[in-house]
Amino acid sequence: MGLKSFVDVPRDSHFPLENLPFGVFRPAGGEPARPGVAIGDYVLDLAAIASAGLFDGPVLGNHSQCFLESSLNLFLGMGRPAWKEARLTIQRLLSADEPTLRDNASLRKKALLPMSEVEMLLPVVIGDYTDFFSSYYHAKNCGTMFRGPENAVSQNWYHLPIAYHGRASSVVISGTDVIRPRGQGHPVGNSPPYFGPSQKMDFELEMAAIVGPGNELGRPVGVDEAADRIFGLVLMNDWSARDIQAWEYVPLGPFLGKSFATTISPWIVTLDALEPFVCPAPKQDPPPLPYLAESKHTNYDIHLEVCIKPAGHEHPSIVTKSNFKHLYWTISQQLAHHTINGCNLRPGDMLGTGTISGPDPDSLGCLLELTWNAQNQLTLNGTTRKYLEDGDEVTFTGYCKGNDYNVGFGTCTGKLLPSIP
Amino acid sequence: MGLKSFVDVPRDSHFPLENLPFGVFRPAGGEPARPGVAIGDYVLDLAAIASAGLFDGPVLGNHSQCFLESSLNLFLGMGRPAWKEARLTIQRLLSADEPTLRDNASLRKKALLPMSEVEMLLPVVIGDYTDFFSSYYHAKNCGTMFRGPENAVSQNWYHLPIAYHGRASSVVISGTDVIRPRGQGHPVGNSPPYFGPSQKMDFELEMAAIVGPGNELGRPVGVDEAADRIFGLVLMNDWSARDIQAWEYVPLGPFLGKSFATTISPWIVTLDALEPFVCPAPKQDPPPLPYLAESKHTNYDIHLEVCIKPAGHEHPSIVTKSNFKHLYWTISQQLAHHTINGCNLRPGDMLGTGTISGPDPDSLGCLLELTWNAQNQLTLNGTTRKYLEDGDEVTFTGYCKGNDYNVGFGTCTGKLLPSIP
Repeated sequence: MGLKSFVDVPRDSHFPLENLPFGVFRPAGGEPARPGVAIGDYVLDLAAIASAGLFDGPVLGNHSQCFLESSLNLFLGMGRPAWKEARLTIQRLLSADEPTLRDNASLRKKALLPMSEVEMLLPVVIGDYTDFFSSYYHAKNCGTMFRGPENAVSQNWYHLPIAYHGRASSVVISGTDVIRPRGQGHPVGNSPPYFGPSQKMDFELEMAAIVGPGNELGRPVGVDEAADRIFGLVLMNDWSARDIQAWEYVPLGPFLGKSFATTISPWIVTLDALEPFVCPAPKQDPPPLPYLAESKHTNYDIHLEVCIKPAGHEHPSIVTKSNFKHLYWTISQQLAHHTINGCNLRPGDMLGTGTISGPDPDSLGCLLELTWNAQNQLTLNGTTRKYLEDGDEVTFTGYCKGNDYNVGFGTCTGKLLPSIP
Repeated sequence: MGLKSFVDVPRDSHFPLENLPFGVFRPAGGEPARPGVAIGDYVLDLAAIASAGLFDGPVLGNHSQCFLESSLNLFLGMGRPAWKEARLTIQRLLSADEPTLRDNASLRKKALLPMSEVEMLLPVVIGDYTDFFSSYYHAKNCGTMFRGPENAVSQNWYHLPIAYHGRASSVVISGTDVIRPRGQGHPVGNSPPYFGPSQKMDFELEMAAIVGPGNELGRPVGVDEAADRIFGLVLMNDWSARDIQAWEYVPLGPFLGKSFATTISPWIVTLDALEPFVCPAPKQDPPPLPYLAESKHTNYDIHLEVCIKPAGHEHPSIVTKSNFKHLYWTISQQLAHHTINGCNLRPGDMLGTGTISGPDPDSLGCLLELTWNAQNQLTLNGTTRKYLEDGDEVTFTGYCKGNDYNVGFGTCTGKLLPSIP
């Protein structure tokens, strides 16, 4: 049996008392944005709780003004002791047998808002966004398509979590429409490039770690300390224009094929909430260098699912099911690697995992893999897809399955709009 | 003859009345950081000028609070009309025959501070930093070394200004020490990678455009409007660890080989100040696609110079002389390309040019090229270098030569410190 809140939590909710993910929302009526926590179909307004003096523990007692901000950055920078205390306080305040909030009708009305009536915003100001490439299956499939099965996975991939810097300005919140980008593509051989709307629009099923306290420039974070620098995870759609990407990426990597939009889910699920779902990570062979060798090499067992709803369709069709546990390089290894050269991370920085493909044909994390670069097609409820079409709404969801409860991420969704002429 | 200020401007100064570059400084005595303009060996405190009500034109008259900020972002977001008005106001206030400031001893004392007594800071909060690859000579030389003369310059290079996203958090101001990064390198063949301090530390001679008003997500900027989105230029040292870079960069581009530090010069020289030094840019063949075809394909004639001062040496040695005019892709083309997919730029974003190598052996912009990846060595005042050694201080300078005056960038400098064990 799960924990019991006085707030009604539907049985299939992603947001029971065991979860308590953090986000930022704007209440109806134009009040300023502020942090909140999801509980069932409600949002707990942390500004209201802080203003009522209910964060009274040793860490937050004198610092609860972090919940009067329009982003979570300040709170994230305070580190794990603050996060743990906030979680305990909120879990207690929302529990069925705690009267403080339950029996205070006016505070309850002020602090518990129906989720359907608020607008979710980006939870953090993202200073830098980095995207990794940590699923072996994804690396192998893409490599096979573009470089042949002999050289599918480059030699370095087995020794370090490969990554590139992404574009922070175009990270948008779930629900934001995405405009089909225009750009250059290249047909084949020595033909000149063409220009126009991308003809190979894709999603990439990813998750992203949101960084808490960062590190000073020049001071790496050890791999066993890395988890303490990560606040939690979100779902992330790394929208990709495959034709633009294929033409531009040699030799400096992805640029305009990605930078037009990256969508994240609004609720950051904390590593504390994910703790019951720890599972072994894939065995690494060759063994990683000492700075990447972690004493506990673990992932989380998070079920992931992508569906597409074409324009005019009533119901979405599931196109893939994967799992976070397939990641070869863990988020701790990613963070340790990112800082080993002295690079500084800041609160709110975002580390994407890379496309999370699993080993099976129906667990591949993008259309490039699912249709093998348009050689095959998917059937969606009577229609077909090689790549995305205008009007397609792509929705990711993810959750951990507990006994009688879920710890879920909600959804990460976006609709593809036609190019602007 | 140049313009005449009542402030003494030494003949070889980079900062006469024709220049008036913008920066951010902290006065001695712990007062808050604020914007300033360089004039001779002085800094004009724009917060003091704004507080005295001297920005009284139609654009800034009611908005001079942008000069009470600790960064230039707000001012940059106001666009060219504000920049032009600020320049005219400051040029008038500092001119020899204008009594307002000249004859007001108490304001002069408050507003004109010796440059040697202030601390220069990053002039902008950099949301995103992008680095291009726009010198043909640099692309050809690097390609020849790593892929052979046959495939030196990849086919796409001639059709688009190739770029990658850089790391914004580790951009530092001139004068900041740089710690030699640690990381993985790879000797050759199938050997396992090694780990340790980089053995191939390099500088890259670049400049960077600082973005003014940005663009909304989904709304590209036309190439002929691009210059109005650029406030000005700085010098930039894209420090590079060649061994780390060579091992990690396939297939997603540079990451830890660059992200440990990027140094910029403190004074942003405006495009208005550079206008007299416009010169033709290299002819482009094949002609660029229409979205990159600018009605005036021009660069600026900016002399660039790099010197290295080894630890213990009294004098620096010049190691290369290049010129901004060698860039094949102009900053307008870079900005138009960057936004063609709808990617949004924000005020303060930074667009690096990529290493500016010229055609001659003594105009190459990094040690990789100058020593042909350590096959040759440079002689510096009695000692030799293949790559940088601990204690080396690398200084860039740049200037435009007018009649009897310079419009200069000052210096961009940093000393390499040993790796932390």
